[in-house]
Amino acid sequence: MSTTIPTQMQRIVLAARPQGAPKASDFRLETVPMPEPGEGEFLARTIWLSLDPYMRGRMDESKSYAAAVEIDAPMEGGCVAEVIASNNPKFAVGDIVQDYFGWQSHAVSRGEGARKLDPSVAPISTAVGVLGMPGITAYVGLNTHGRPKSGETLVVGAATGAVGSLVGQLAKAQGLRVVGVAGGADKCAYAVDELGFDACLDHRAAADAKALRKQMAEACPDGVDIYFENVGGKTLEAVMPLMNVHGRIPVCGMIGWYNAGMLGAGIVDGPNLLPKIWRTILVNRLSVQGFIITDHYDQFPNFIREVSALVADGKVVYRESIAEGLENAPQAFMKLLEGGNFGKQLVAVSDDPTR
Amino acid sequence: MSTTIPTQMQRIVLAARPQGAPKASDFRLETVPMPEPGEGEFLARTIWLSLDPYMRGRMDESKSYAAAVEIDAPMEGGCVAEVIASNNPKFAVGDIVQDYFGWQSHAVSRGEGARKLDPSVAPISTAVGVLGMPGITAYVGLNTHGRPKSGETLVVGAATGAVGSLVGQLAKAQGLRVVGVAGGADKCAYAVDELGFDACLDHRAAADAKALRKQMAEACPDGVDIYFENVGGKTLEAVMPLMNVHGRIPVCGMIGWYNAGMLGAGIVDGPNLLPKIWRTILVNRLSVQGFIITDHYDQFPNFIREVSALVADGKVVYRESIAEGLENAPQAFMKLLEGGNFGKQLVAVSDDPTR
Repeated sequence: MSTTIPTQMQRIVLAARPQGAPKASDFRLETVPMPEPGEGEFLARTIWLSLDPYMRGRMDESKSYAAAVEIDAPMEGGCVAEVIASNNPKFAVGDIVQDYFGWQSHAVSRGEGARKLDPSVAPISTAVGVLGMPGITAYVGLNTHGRPKSGETLVVGAATGAVGSLVGQLAKAQGLRVVGVAGGADKCAYAVDELGFDACLDHRAAADAKALRKQMAEACPDGVDIYFENVGGKTLEAVMPLMNVHGRIPVCGMIGWYNAGMLGAGIVDGPNLLPKIWRTILVNRLSVQGFIITDHYDQFPNFIREVSALVADGKVVYRESIAEGLENAPQAFMKLLEGGNFGKQLVAVSDDPTR
Repeated sequence: MSTTIPTQMQRIVLAARPQGAPKASDFRLETVPMPEPGEGEFLARTIWLSLDPYMRGRMDESKSYAAAVEIDAPMEGGCVAEVIASNNPKFAVGDIVQDYFGWQSHAVSRGEGARKLDPSVAPISTAVGVLGMPGITAYVGLNTHGRPKSGETLVVGAATGAVGSLVGQLAKAQGLRVVGVAGGADKCAYAVDELGFDACLDHRAAADAKALRKQMAEACPDGVDIYFENVGGKTLEAVMPLMNVHGRIPVCGMIGWYNAGMLGAGIVDGPNLLPKIWRTILVNRLSVQGFIITDHYDQFPNFIREVSALVADGKVVYRESIAEGLENAPQAFMKLLEGGNFGKQLVAVSDDPTR
């Protein structure tokens, strides 16, 4: 592992705040001098960069649960990285860590937020996927906010994505009927054949929310008890009238709306959609609970113990979509927001020494 | 009390399903033969008929938590009544009961849902108001779903109505800052001067949701922790951006939308309102909980004990708006839906022997 440390590093910064869907010119690839770790710090090279829908929110100025990325600052993001120089006794050269280093080839850190990984437990890339932030999002959203009971029916959008695929598999393991919604026949086939979902509906093939609702009603003969909300849009509109009394809706995202509409970039909802949905919440006594996973990291030890075992046993499977090279991160991210990924979206920033 | 029983009775039936706001021709006053109580039944004369916003929902065919009123069937409604003939040993002539006899001058009942009232505890009309269904709606919505904490801020619409006025007074008693929203300067003055709210905003004087929000932001310098939702519309749109992290929204009604829009009778929401509100739920980790009070009648004993004492001590006050005569119920109900009532809306159907 003791290679010569380069004199320069690459990073991708936010060049402009996107209006609607981000475009290539909203990002800028920069080459800057390699930083040196100070006292108590280490230098790491990014192996895997995680791309996640929440990053779209960070590109906006509007109030959110975390500060916006500043213009000309590196994009934020979770990474799996290797320590290549260290002045911190807790981290040795060669250690593999998970931390939020951003869209950068290298980073200096005091290691305060770093989690050391054991490559013998699971492939290290899972630390930003099924065994990382997306995984615990699925775990907490389903268990704490969804309160699943055997025999109930769950619907989840972005069914083959990092979060949705685990939500469905964990729900299946607890005896629920699981119906996914995904974009494309290949994804739907994967959700049923590989993830074990009972059904998966292709929202791209449905002309509108009404058409999707008709298919969903057939796939959910006993109605829907839990709608795990990570997409918004047509899927939300389709599922609401099917919600059962005392149904639960954990809300962790709304990728279907991130590019259009949320920012006034277009009209995305039909007339009177809010009153209709609000009325369904009342009439069916629904619990709608927004949550941000950073509020729930106290559950990380339980999550990692339970889900690591399921991954090790092959009872939970996952799929990765890999873009090669940091310079291709913007393109992969733009594709992710349009649903062009298939499974957890990663960027291979440098060689994975454990593969 | 032993008066001659008339040979005929009056009732108001649903003549037609309203499109948007109900009109006089959607109701019909009928005179029909007086029923006779059978074995185990009693006959009661209605003294007070309660008019409540939920009745608007019963006039529609669309799916709700209770069956729709059938065309040509009497309108549903809670009543305070006097037993005037009885073949049921549990109910004696002269007993005052609360039950759901509908918009009728008289009714026959087995007494299974009837609650006997003690006129010495409180005026009997309160059994359909502050000490009845609207009262327990306020009590459960605030305490079970609102989870109030001293020092927090609560916003409630229809602030001088049967539910809103009690929500605010109970919240004040628990040390919250209470800001009401009501229609008209007289109602707002009453909310502050008589109900003890910290502030009350006149939604009729605010040009739009944005103007209302500006006033609300000034009235809620620490943001809003609980929004007790019983109106929807402009008030909901105004309050959402002011909601604090981990805020709670118990949803028990949306009178602002009942007439327009919910049924496609008009466009009531602006573009992209749903995505904006959904995003706020996520970002601020809000709990939105629809509830129907009939799910919570196990709390009735606690409610009646606590709130009766507050009413007896004058710590909770209430106001009644009284229409004279069953024939005027439709007009009073139509006015209620437009916010024309001021306090709990009652219909004085016959003489109250306890007043």
